[in-house]
Amino acid sequence: MDNMDFGMLLELVHDKKFAVLKAALADMNEADIADFLCEADDADENVLLLFRMLGKDISADVFSRLPAEIQQLIIEGISDKEVRNIIEDLFVDDAVDMIEEMPATIVKRVLKNANPETRELINRILKYPENSAGSIMTVEYIALKKNMTVEEAIDYIRRNAVDKETIYDCFVTDDTRILQGVVSFRSIILSGSRTLINDIMEKNIISAVTTDDREDVADAFSKYDLISMPVVDKENRLVGIITVDDAVDVIEEEATEDFEKMAGMLPSEKPYLSTGVFKLALNRIPWLLVLMISSMLTGGILAKYESAIAVLPILVTFIPMLTDTGGNAGSQSSTMIIRGMAVGDIKTSDFLRVFWKELRVAVICGAALVAVNFVRLMIFGTGSFSIIMTIILSLFATVITAKTIGGLLPIAANALRLDPAIMAAPLITTIVDAVSLIIYFNLAARLLGI
Amino acid sequence: MDNMDFGMLLELVHDKKFAVLKAALADMNEADIADFLCEADDADENVLLLFRMLGKDISADVFSRLPAEIQQLIIEGISDKEVRNIIEDLFVDDAVDMIEEMPATIVKRVLKNANPETRELINRILKYPENSAGSIMTVEYIALKKNMTVEEAIDYIRRNAVDKETIYDCFVTDDTRILQGVVSFRSIILSGSRTLINDIMEKNIISAVTTDDREDVADAFSKYDLISMPVVDKENRLVGIITVDDAVDVIEEEATEDFEKMAGMLPSEKPYLSTGVFKLALNRIPWLLVLMISSMLTGGILAKYESAIAVLPILVTFIPMLTDTGGNAGSQSSTMIIRGMAVGDIKTSDFLRVFWKELRVAVICGAALVAVNFVRLMIFGTGSFSIIMTIILSLFATVITAKTIGGLLPIAANALRLDPAIMAAPLITTIVDAVSLIIYFNLAARLLGI
Repeated sequence: MDNMDFGMLLELVHDKKFAVLKAALADMNEADIADFLCEADDADENVLLLFRMLGKDISADVFSRLPAEIQQLIIEGISDKEVRNIIEDLFVDDAVDMIEEMPATIVKRVLKNANPETRELINRILKYPENSAGSIMTVEYIALKKNMTVEEAIDYIRRNAVDKETIYDCFVTDDTRILQGVVSFRSIILSGSRTLINDIMEKNIISAVTTDDREDVADAFSKYDLISMPVVDKENRLVGIITVDDAVDVIEEEATEDFEKMAGMLPSEKPYLSTGVFKLALNRIPWLLVLMISSMLTGGILAKYESAIAVLPILVTFIPMLTDTGGNAGSQSSTMIIRGMAVGDIKTSDFLRVFWKELRVAVICGAALVAVNFVRLMIFGTGSFSIIMTIILSLFATVITAKTIGGLLPIAANALRLDPAIMAAPLITTIVDAVSLIIYFNLAARLLGI
Repeated sequence: MDNMDFGMLLELVHDKKFAVLKAALADMNEADIADFLCEADDADENVLLLFRMLGKDISADVFSRLPAEIQQLIIEGISDKEVRNIIEDLFVDDAVDMIEEMPATIVKRVLKNANPETRELINRILKYPENSAGSIMTVEYIALKKNMTVEEAIDYIRRNAVDKETIYDCFVTDDTRILQGVVSFRSIILSGSRTLINDIMEKNIISAVTTDDREDVADAFSKYDLISMPVVDKENRLVGIITVDDAVDVIEEEATEDFEKMAGMLPSEKPYLSTGVFKLALNRIPWLLVLMISSMLTGGILAKYESAIAVLPILVTFIPMLTDTGGNAGSQSSTMIIRGMAVGDIKTSDFLRVFWKELRVAVICGAALVAVNFVRLMIFGTGSFSIIMTIILSLFATVITAKTIGGLLPIAANALRLDPAIMAAPLITTIVDAVSLIIYFNLAARLLGI
């Protein structure tokens, strides 16, 4: 669990002590070697040279964990024969991940060097829509027949395990590849050697269709504690499997996407540091523009009350407190609801429960804020009692409105088949800003007669 | 992947068609049965009765997936003998999870009914600090010796697999329980029956210490594609293992915690709908108060410019646009950096790279916003050219400041060993509000001479 000491390794590279380095790399985990190659690249060392130092048995595994830029750099530097070896050693899902990030010329070279069967498999997976179950599956699984005995099955698994991504779940299909059951290796090993697979396989299968959303697939892994899941086509024919490590990646990527969306950005595909400045700016500008234009409407509301402001400029000084608190109160609520819906805890049908809960929470929060504000205004305040009443009543009304709007808009978005994540802090803040100003100036007009 | 039709099942309960219901439940997955029991509880049906309908082989598994309220309800309703059966059938980590949520009287009853060995194991895990690797581990693993042959190992696994959480990773220890290696069941099954475990075990082990943060453990699962990880004490003695399903839960819970913190809330331990109104309010009030008081300071800045506002009230109407845009621009940046640090893509040492990147992104975003605003003000604007210049210069400066502050504060927090997530949208917005108003009114004073 400790971070590797890459500094020492980099010194070895720098001093060209390649024999020592090679021995050190041979002892390291593939994921750590990939991390080290990234560091070496940052330090302007020759990554290609280092990559070639790796043993044949681990180079494909290390390669699959490298970021696209370094994968491209390596492919460009190695011979066709080396490309061929890597492609054949990669699991098909990793090969597809890599190809999806490469420019067309590299893709051509990679596919040209793959053997026809691999090429066909890669092309098949490339056809599935992005974010679908099909796009993250692999085709290297163990398929058994239900009339096999446990002994035959173990023998079959032993002979076919080498290039399979998992052997711990085995899939039972008929002659037309229709999925009939799943049997864990654990059940197989615990059963007598003459037991039929048919008698120990689970027929109540948790499976995905190729077109299912990959997020739903990942949620099912989490709900059912799976280590793999079969993927079938519309005719229930087994076409691939998804393994838990890929589901974990999806869970992390989807959470990252939600963080980005909820901060008013288009989701980025690559990590921050490897995304270009223009791409980052392009992801951010649309929502900044939309929200800027919306906040001009809020400005328009203020313009309507210009005369009131001219008479009583002190009113302006409370605007940041009101709008900020409203925005914060609203985004607290919307964040909880959006996340609750993302992990499946809250459904559209919980509309009323959320409304009733947020209303009561808002009353408590509003009361606490009002109490603090009241004390502060009574001690330090410069305004009259009517101004104080205007402020605290506006504050209370703002918190109530903000929390109910924040709680309900994400559910409404979901009901309209929009992504609830768009109803996050930035949009809620803009909406609540406008509402709180209208409340504030209307109360001011009544209580202060301006 | 389809949602179950619980409506039909609830009708069976309602009509007391228990034989049909029992048959239907027997075909269902444990996770779905748990979901169904929650629905039945919501519909005020007798959950205890339904729970007792479950087969002995699945009742502990279903029990472990139920929320604490329903677990408590069941424990309170069943006999001591039934409690004993459930406790002994539960994996120790699930028993601990349950006990942590129960009131003291129930805990007493549960522990009294556990057999002494189980009780000792439960008590040992209960001692580890919350959020530590020790607190999420289980003690039911396969431990082999390195001088066993493959044949002996398979035989040992067959005899001991029943109550082990996973058999797919086996752990090799010496007589003093020091961890010496890990061997996958796959390697075992693919090796000749006389091969020594010592020759096929992996000695370069990814392990955790009991006191490690569970978030780091979960990150290691994701990085190294593990299905389990051994947990050792300070003397490197094997004390337990963590399985991937628990790591997945940690990843989801930690992301949820970050969402909550980043929206200015204290993290909640239970799902939204099962958290009480007072608890929800208590989680939200502290940050609302802190931010409300901070935004009063922003109000104080406005108060300083009261005379300027009285002279030129139109200035006020641009404040929402400026502060909202600043807040949004800043929280876009801070969100990307906080998330990047949470998933390990960005480190404190990337300070300068982040600064330089955010600066350039800010220039592009700022220019785009200024361009749109300039066109709009030239067409619809009511102010003079100096006012327009004041506004667009302030906007540009605000975006630049917001993005650099938003990008750097989370890294600064991390360097100071604070949680970067506190530097999220609410705090950034409050800080940027103040900064943008100071810029705005200072520019106004110079360009407009007020």
